[in-house]
This record gives sequence, structure tokens and C-alpha cells, in this order.
Amino acid sequence: MTMNPFFEKYRASIEESIIAFLTKKKDELSSVNIWGEDLMRRFSGFAGQGKMIRGGLVILSYLMYKGNDPGWIVKTASAVELIHSSLLIHDDIMDRDYVRRGEKTLFAQYQELGENEKYHDPVHFGESFGICAGDIGFFLAFEILSEVDIYPEAKGKIFNLWSKELTLVGLAQMQDVYFSISNLEPGEDEILDLYRFKTARYTFSLPLMTGAILAGQDTKTALHLEKLGECIGIIFQIKDDELGLFGDEKEIGKPVGTDIEEGKKTIYSHYLLKSVRGEDRKSVQNILHQKINTKSALETLRDISQKAHVHDMIRKKILSLSEEAKQLIYGLNIEVKYREILLDILEYNINRER
Amino acid sequence: MTMNPFFEKYRASIEESIIAFLTKKKDELSSVNIWGEDLMRRFSGFAGQGKMIRGGLVILSYLMYKGNDPGWIVKTASAVELIHSSLLIHDDIMDRDYVRRGEKTLFAQYQELGENEKYHDPVHFGESFGICAGDIGFFLAFEILSEVDIYPEAKGKIFNLWSKELTLVGLAQMQDVYFSISNLEPGEDEILDLYRFKTARYTFSLPLMTGAILAGQDTKTALHLEKLGECIGIIFQIKDDELGLFGDEKEIGKPVGTDIEEGKKTIYSHYLLKSVRGEDRKSVQNILHQKINTKSALETLRDISQKAHVHDMIRKKILSLSEEAKQLIYGLNIEVKYREILLDILEYNINRER
Repeated sequence: MTMNPFFEKYRASIEESIIAFLTKKKDELSSVNIWGEDLMRRFSGFAGQGKMIRGGLVILSYLMYKGNDPGWIVKTASAVELIHSSLLIHDDIMDRDYVRRGEKTLFAQYQELGENEKYHDPVHFGESFGICAGDIGFFLAFEILSEVDIYPEAKGKIFNLWSKELTLVGLAQMQDVYFSISNLEPGEDEILDLYRFKTARYTFSLPLMTGAILAGQDTKTALHLEKLGECIGIIFQIKDDELGLFGDEKEIGKPVGTDIEEGKKTIYSHYLLKSVRGEDRKSVQNILHQKINTKSALETLRDISQKAHVHDMIRKKILSLSEEAKQLIYGLNIEVKYREILLDILEYNINRER
Repeated sequence: MTMNPFFEKYRASIEESIIAFLTKKKDELSSVNIWGEDLMRRFSGFAGQGKMIRGGLVILSYLMYKGNDPGWIVKTASAVELIHSSLLIHDDIMDRDYVRRGEKTLFAQYQELGENEKYHDPVHFGESFGICAGDIGFFLAFEILSEVDIYPEAKGKIFNLWSKELTLVGLAQMQDVYFSISNLEPGEDEILDLYRFKTARYTFSLPLMTGAILAGQDTKTALHLEKLGECIGIIFQIKDDELGLFGDEKEIGKPVGTDIEEGKKTIYSHYLLKSVRGEDRKSVQNILHQKINTKSALETLRDISQKAHVHDMIRKKILSLSEEAKQLIYGLNIEVKYREILLDILEYNINRER
């Protein structure tokens, strides 16, 4: 299962746009102190990777309504990708994730630097530098947007959309940390809300709405796309849970099972705990509560999941969201070729292996 | 020594504007999860305090060029204050500062919550929530700006100014962490550059430039105010060092001597190490390198400083910056009453005790 060629087509230009901006900033910031250059270099290595789904969706949505690429749309896309990278930088500190996209996470890179230089408390050094790096990433994204050559009213609207949405992401991240650290077992709705605000909306709704607003679409269309983004985004996150538990480590670029170590409350663990009884339930609880992430623990979870038909429950949930998304896609007033791409994105998210 | 009445006049309205916005957001965000309300409440308690120097300067600068308050200028001022609060929230995590403005710092409040609820690793919980809170504060500030009723071109310019400046603050913060953690003894220029980018520019240059740009002033005026802001801001930071070492704990609202504990490289410690020899030098080095922050250590530092005329050296530096600032103030094409306020702010910064 591969992404629709539309994304492959624009992936390289978004990457190019990010790298060009960071290179310009590297020169500009080198006069401030040694960290400007250092950070822009690390950012390039990090933000220049990835699938560029979010950026691609900005471009897709714009083209759906305008048809022609105005040149600056790729810059707006690159800003959305920089925001995503910055969220990951801060997330990785909180989740203590050391590997991302097959590389050391940013705070872990600085921690390593601190270890090599024998600083006192390299962990705190790495975290501190990671906090600053994430902050800077947000500001760089806003700088790009502030310089994009779009009509000023649209700029204000996009700034408003992004600021408001990022506040929601921050609150959902707090909820995620809180669920991970406490012994609560949140209900299905709470977990789905977490997915909605932490991932779904900024990954799908925000880019789709950004493109449409920039193409001059009204609030009604924006709200339609917002809902569509939530449906696809929640599917995306449910798949992420599955891959995080049972995926192929090389394919997904990060270790499998870290959700368990981090005590994450996923829809998977929720359905599992809801469905199993007796000895199996004890095994599941033991693994989840003790945060045991070994090969055999993951196999046990997989076996019990299959026996208890958890995969089928998840599939059912995904299908119902998928039906809703399809209806929303057919309700959009766009050309058939763009409808096909949206349907394809939906399909890809349901079946992706990475 | 008190602040010019101009600031006292606007302090309450800036505070009111912040609280009104946070109250509105509290209602809006309470549907997301429990943290929206919790965080807006804590933010109100924190951001509603302070001297509102930065917000006051936005208003002053606007009035210098426009004469009339358009109503929305106080909102812009409140956004600048929210940015300041958010920077402090992240700084306090990095510096491990537990007290600020006479209250527990935000991450320390969440750490306490984690301790009370017996979470595993309350320190990490507090830091994680502090990271999210600071991020959210930045986005709230940008949201306010995006909704201010100013002409759209100016909005784009201010977004650009703020984003760029906050990147510099982030890099300077990295430098500050780096200096604190390493055994380097940076030179005077490096320390002054740190002050310039970490505090001076965003505290004075940015508000002054914001007000002027909103009042329709050109780049030349903005650059003049930028330079003036740097001069006053560096004096402000030098005074901050002095108060942080020898100030009155109750007056300044936080413990004295924490700079030493944190291994901060200040202009004070720089001049001290440059000026003293023999036994005194050994004492100073011992206190600074061992990060000893006791009453008797602070007294020793004070005595040696006086003996070595470090206070005079500092005074000389401040006077030279002050002369430059005065010339810049007289170079501004503004009414005498505003010139008097600027001169008064300069004077206040030189002599303040808190």
C-alpha cells in the first residue's frame, strides 16, 4: 500500500522549501551565537524527512478549489510541516522517545552532546535544548506564514486557525501525559477525544481548512473539511496504535511497543481490557500495568487480541468512521480527480503498514 | 524609586484585558478536557501579575506617534505580556526556578499536583505540563494578535516581528543554559550579547517597535527604537543581576542568589573574576564554581565586590549605556511629555530596587 502519487509529487518540493528556508535562517542566525547554525542544521535533517502528509494536504485542498498552484502554497505547506516537527520535538521530551524517523530525537541528540562534553546532568541539558528547539520551530513556522505572499485578510484568518488549533493540541497533549502517568482507565469517548484533539485535527482538519481558506472558500466548506479531517485523522491514529503495537520496526522507523512502556491509553488497550476475562485478562493487565515491552509480551497481546476478536472490533470502528468520511467526501463540491485522491488517502490510512 | 505613573495608569487595563481573554478561553476550552479550565485559571493567577512593563511600552510607543488610544492597543499589549509569561514558564523549567512573582512557578505547581496525587515521577509530570503550558501561552498570544482589529498589513508585519524576535530569544536561552552548564568563562561581549537577545530586545525593543509599527511609523523609526530598547534592556538586565545577587528577597519576589546555584554567567561574576587576585579570587571562584548560595557566601561576594570596586565598574558600564540611550531618546521626533516618560523609564531601570 503506497500513498497516492499526488503526495509523492509534492513531497520533494515541500522538503526543498523547508531546507531553503532553514538554510537562509542558518546564515541569518549564525551571528547570534553558535546555536543558530547548529539548530538549523539539525532541523534540516529532521524536518526534511517524513511523509509530508500535512503539507501535501494543504496543497491538495488549495488545488481542489483553485486548480492552479500559486507558488506560495508550497511555502504554507512547509510551515505546517515545521509546526508538526516542533510538536514532535516537544512530544518526544515528554514521552522520553529516543528514536523518531529512524534517527535520534532532537532532545536525545543534545543529551548525547551533553554526555560527550561531560556536562553535569546531560539529561536536563538535552531536555532544555529540546524545549528551546521546539519553541523556535513554532516561531519559524509563523515567520514563514507571515512572509507568504497571500492577501492580508487570509493571513489573519490562517494565523487565527493555527493558533486556536495548536492550543487544543497542547491541551490534548496534557491529557495524554496525564492518562499515561495515572492509573485511570479512560472510556472510549475520552480516548477518541484525545485522538481528535491531539492528532486528527491538526494532521488532517487543519491542513484541509488552511488550503480551502487560502483558496477563498467560506466557513461552511471549512467546517465540512474540519469534520472530514477528524474522521480520517481518528482512523490514522487508530492505525498508529496498531502499528505501534504490532507493526514492523524497520517500516515505521521507531521501536515497537513503546506505547506500553509509556503507559499510553490507546483504543487497543481499551478494547482489549473490555473484551477479555479470566487468565487472559490477568495477562493483559500484567503487561499493561507493569509496562512490559518484550517480544513475548507483544506476542501474548497479539494472540489474546486475536482470540478475543479485538482486531474485528477495531476494524468495525474504522469502517464506521470510513463510511462517515466517504459520505463527507461525496458531499464536497470538487472535481472527480480530487475526490479520487481523497478516497485514496482514506483507503491508504486504513491499510497502511507504516 | 517607582515606575512612571504612565505604567501604573495602564497596568490595570492590561491586566483586565488578559483576564477577560483567559476567562473567555476558559469557557471555550472546558469542553476539550479538564486541563483547559485548570490551565486558564493558573494562567490568570500568573499572567495577571507583574509590572506590565512590556505591555505598557507597546501602549506608550503607540501613543508617542498617534496620540489617541484606539481601544485595541491594550489587547496587543496583553498579547505581549502573555508571550512574556510563556517565556518565563519555559525558562523556569530549564533553570529549575520554583518561585516567581512570590508564587510557585507553573511547572512547580503541576509538580506539586503530581506529588499530591502520588503520580510516578511528579518532576517529569510537572515539567511536561509546563512545556505544554508555555506552548499554549504562545499560541494564545498569537490568537489575540490575530483577532485584534488593526489593518491587515500591520498585522502581518507584527507577526513577522514577533516570530523573528522569539527565535532569537530561544537561541539566547540555549546559550544561557549552555553557559550555566559548562565551565566556560565567557567574555564581556558574549555576556552582553546574551543579555541583548535573551532579555533586552524582547522586553524593550519589541514592544517599542510594535507600538510604532501599529502607529504607521517607518522602518527608520523602528530601527531607532530597536537600538534604544537594546540600551535600556541591557541596563535592565545588569540591574537584574545585581538584585539577583544583593537584592531584597521580599522586594523582588524570588529567592536571592539562585543565579549562583544555577551557574549563571553574569556581568557581575565576570567583572568580579576579572578584578580580584589572591585569596579573594580563590574565595570568589570557590563560591561560583561550587555554586554555594548561603547568606555568608553572598556577604563575602558583596564585600569582595566593594573592595575591588566592581560596583563602580558596573556603574560605569551602566552610565555609558545610559548616555547612549539618552542621545537616542533626544533623537526621537516625539512630544516632550513622551520624551520625559522615556527618560524616566531609563532612570527607573538604573535605580530600581525590585
